[in-house]
Amino acid sequence: MSGTAQIGVTGLAVMGRNLARNFARNGFTVAVHNRTTSRTDALVKEFGDEGTFVAAHTPEEFVAALERPRRLVIMVKAGDPTDAVIQEFAPLLEDGDVIIDGGNAHFEDTRRREKELRERGIHFVGAGISGGEEGALHGPSVMPGGSAESYASLGPMLERIAARAKDGTPCTAHIGPDGAGHFVKMVHNGIEYADMQLIAEAYDLLRRVAGYSPAHIAETFRSWNTGRLDSYLIEITAEVLAHTDAATGRPFVDIVQDRAEQKGTGRWTVQIALDLGVPVSGIAEAVFARSLSGHADLREASRELPGPVAEPLEGAEASAFADRVEQALYASKVVSYTQGFHQIRAGSEAYDWGIDLGSVAAIWRAGCIIRAAFLDRIRAAYDSRPGLVSLLSDEEFGREIGAAQDDWRAVVAEAVRQGVPTPGFAAALAYYDGLRADRLPAALTQGQRDFFGAHTYRRTDREGSFHTLWGGDRSEAEAG
Amino acid sequence: MSGTAQIGVTGLAVMGRNLARNFARNGFTVAVHNRTTSRTDALVKEFGDEGTFVAAHTPEEFVAALERPRRLVIMVKAGDPTDAVIQEFAPLLEDGDVIIDGGNAHFEDTRRREKELRERGIHFVGAGISGGEEGALHGPSVMPGGSAESYASLGPMLERIAARAKDGTPCTAHIGPDGAGHFVKMVHNGIEYADMQLIAEAYDLLRRVAGYSPAHIAETFRSWNTGRLDSYLIEITAEVLAHTDAATGRPFVDIVQDRAEQKGTGRWTVQIALDLGVPVSGIAEAVFARSLSGHADLREASRELPGPVAEPLEGAEASAFADRVEQALYASKVVSYTQGFHQIRAGSEAYDWGIDLGSVAAIWRAGCIIRAAFLDRIRAAYDSRPGLVSLLSDEEFGREIGAAQDDWRAVVAEAVRQGVPTPGFAAALAYYDGLRADRLPAALTQGQRDFFGAHTYRRTDREGSFHTLWGGDRSEAEAG
Repeated sequence: MSGTAQIGVTGLAVMGRNLARNFARNGFTVAVHNRTTSRTDALVKEFGDEGTFVAAHTPEEFVAALERPRRLVIMVKAGDPTDAVIQEFAPLLEDGDVIIDGGNAHFEDTRRREKELRERGIHFVGAGISGGEEGALHGPSVMPGGSAESYASLGPMLERIAARAKDGTPCTAHIGPDGAGHFVKMVHNGIEYADMQLIAEAYDLLRRVAGYSPAHIAETFRSWNTGRLDSYLIEITAEVLAHTDAATGRPFVDIVQDRAEQKGTGRWTVQIALDLGVPVSGIAEAVFARSLSGHADLREASRELPGPVAEPLEGAEASAFADRVEQALYASKVVSYTQGFHQIRAGSEAYDWGIDLGSVAAIWRAGCIIRAAFLDRIRAAYDSRPGLVSLLSDEEFGREIGAAQDDWRAVVAEAVRQGVPTPGFAAALAYYDGLRADRLPAALTQGQRDFFGAHTYRRTDREGSFHTLWGGDRSEAEAG
Repeated sequence: MSGTAQIGVTGLAVMGRNLARNFARNGFTVAVHNRTTSRTDALVKEFGDEGTFVAAHTPEEFVAALERPRRLVIMVKAGDPTDAVIQEFAPLLEDGDVIIDGGNAHFEDTRRREKELRERGIHFVGAGISGGEEGALHGPSVMPGGSAESYASLGPMLERIAARAKDGTPCTAHIGPDGAGHFVKMVHNGIEYADMQLIAEAYDLLRRVAGYSPAHIAETFRSWNTGRLDSYLIEITAEVLAHTDAATGRPFVDIVQDRAEQKGTGRWTVQIALDLGVPVSGIAEAVFARSLSGHADLREASRELPGPVAEPLEGAEASAFADRVEQALYASKVVSYTQGFHQIRAGSEAYDWGIDLGSVAAIWRAGCIIRAAFLDRIRAAYDSRPGLVSLLSDEEFGREIGAAQDDWRAVVAEAVRQGVPTPGFAAALAYYDGLRADRLPAALTQGQRDFFGAHTYRRTDREGSFHTLWGGDRSEAEAG
């Protein structure tokens, strides 16, 4: 038996509800289901005039309402709840049906689920969805993984509900098999952490070194938002900084506790990057900065540690410094994206996903939290050189960062001198200088490893592995 | 049936062989076993005169050779080989026998194994052993986890074979239940990564900014080794830098490829720190620096990126700079240990291990790779204030770092200006400035999170969670 709904959504909390409405508003008949049936009825009652909904009160009704092959979107919490819902629905499905997990699953879970369901003849699509509640309703950026066959069935619908880039292209595309979509969404979130940390550092410098007020900094971000930093996060930074707390009349940012929280995808990004051997120092520093901010006991115990008190600049000096901060922010941002795209490339190679990096940049251009004008240039960089080994080796980005680097160095040096923590700016610059170094002191590290652990080393002048007899006559032996 | 050997060692590669010899040299009767029996016989033939060995050719012979309760040390590769050996021997053992895993196991594996074996009445001791081949033979630093009962049986033997600190104390102690020993060994290795990276950066600065030759730098490290930096790693750094390559007549460090390798415990340290929410930025940068050095393709593609060419200082300026590098190295090292001990404290709390941090510092004073004079001062800091929340809040370390910080800042600023990558120094300084900051820009981060994801925030002036209606009239609502 099959129904008329082209898609179904189960799990009608705010993300699921908005996604269902988005499908309905775009002309699709949408089956809706929720464990607590009152929520299903409420949706239809409140938004029924937006399109065609089929309210299903049981899993059986829900499945029966869907046309074949069925497309069933799960919008529940990542982890065990997702497994539970899959176990509930899978027995009701048939060969060729498609389950889509629109939550923030770990890509390893997605790989496991895809494999299990594939063996039962069911397509499983782990789809990263970014853009929050508003995105879900008005157009998210969607990163679906899974089989090409599932994308053939699902893709045209996703392309209808997704955000659109300025050139009209929908912000979704087939990312690659099994966990590819959730992997890319994870890195998206890691980059988001880095972006936010860099913005926080820029704000801190403008406040403490340039001596600007939050309102003045809001203006500064607004002006930056008209240039190459044009992005959603810069835009909302200005909004947050311009906001005045009604209760106290003080700048909103000053009445918020300075303890940043996190939900885990930034942490995952760094953990997986470590497994892949990809240096993502900018993302790591962003995650660490959040956890550091939350350690009230350590901070309390460290408050009396000696250090300089930042002395705000004045007049033209302050505004020249602010211009330099823009350069530092931009250069550090380019490094974050370089690291993030390196991680996607490495993941794609490790899991044989064949991810098109230009396409990833393209679908982040709108709908998601890190949407930004410059993603169009990243897309162009990868489209023109698909084998591009690093974003920094793109001619245009290399040229820009080259022009920015004097200011970037001046800002980090000034922050260090004045005692303003800029872990993100500094890590990005160290990465840049590390990559361009002719020789790294890693040679000494290898020498030490050979000394205490006989781990061997390679020579610059001939092939092979070598070990020096450090405890003996210090002659060299060829190893293995 | 029970034999006369007080301890047995199975797995006679170099670490196992040397550990067995160490026990024998200290008067214990040692049963030895290896899958390839020729290795067992070779050990007895070559080193039989060092003590009393019982060569066992089968698992059954091996177990029969041990007195009750049996103490059986497994020295095989971490991972599946360890499980295989445990599965082989466990059925031959009896209630109260003790299996000791002396390999570099992940502490989660140790927790699993301890639980499984405990249910079978067998004690399982995950023992971190540091010091490499030489340490295993002459006295390692041993970090045993497991039940108090197992330590009562095993501890006195470990105390005989362990290294001794200058005050004569053996470098071993009961760390805590189940995975505690391997956890502490893991963090030891993470700190080792950070120590090595900081030394590498100091070397790079002395080479490129002070303009010193490797031989001159070796002298510099030798002189540092007579002061507060006195440690095994500083000592061997001088040895490696002083070494001349016989084949070319060039400094050894210049003929070694500048690609540092790694075996995984540094990576684990960072991954677990992320799970625990502990900022270990210094260790992370050390791990990333190694992986960055190994990405030949990225480095090749980035070699032409613009940046300053370091201009070596001369004469008194160079030597003044070298003195400042010593300050920066020391201050950064204190931060690394602060982060590492924070991680141990967090792990101990998360797993309810009750680890004595002073005792950990004490058993690292000799035998292990990071052995250093200043560990005695860390021991003293924790012994005098067991609840010390952070090493940086110890009066003496705080005072020292306060005296070092001007030079530390000058060194990082100079490195940044001259284009020499110092990710470790810079991350340590950012951590220091982050901890002592009165207000962090994390408040802005929380504001942004509330803006795009309704994640709520806390206020500085009253209890509760709040959300601003950013998309509406921007009034504030109390949440949850």
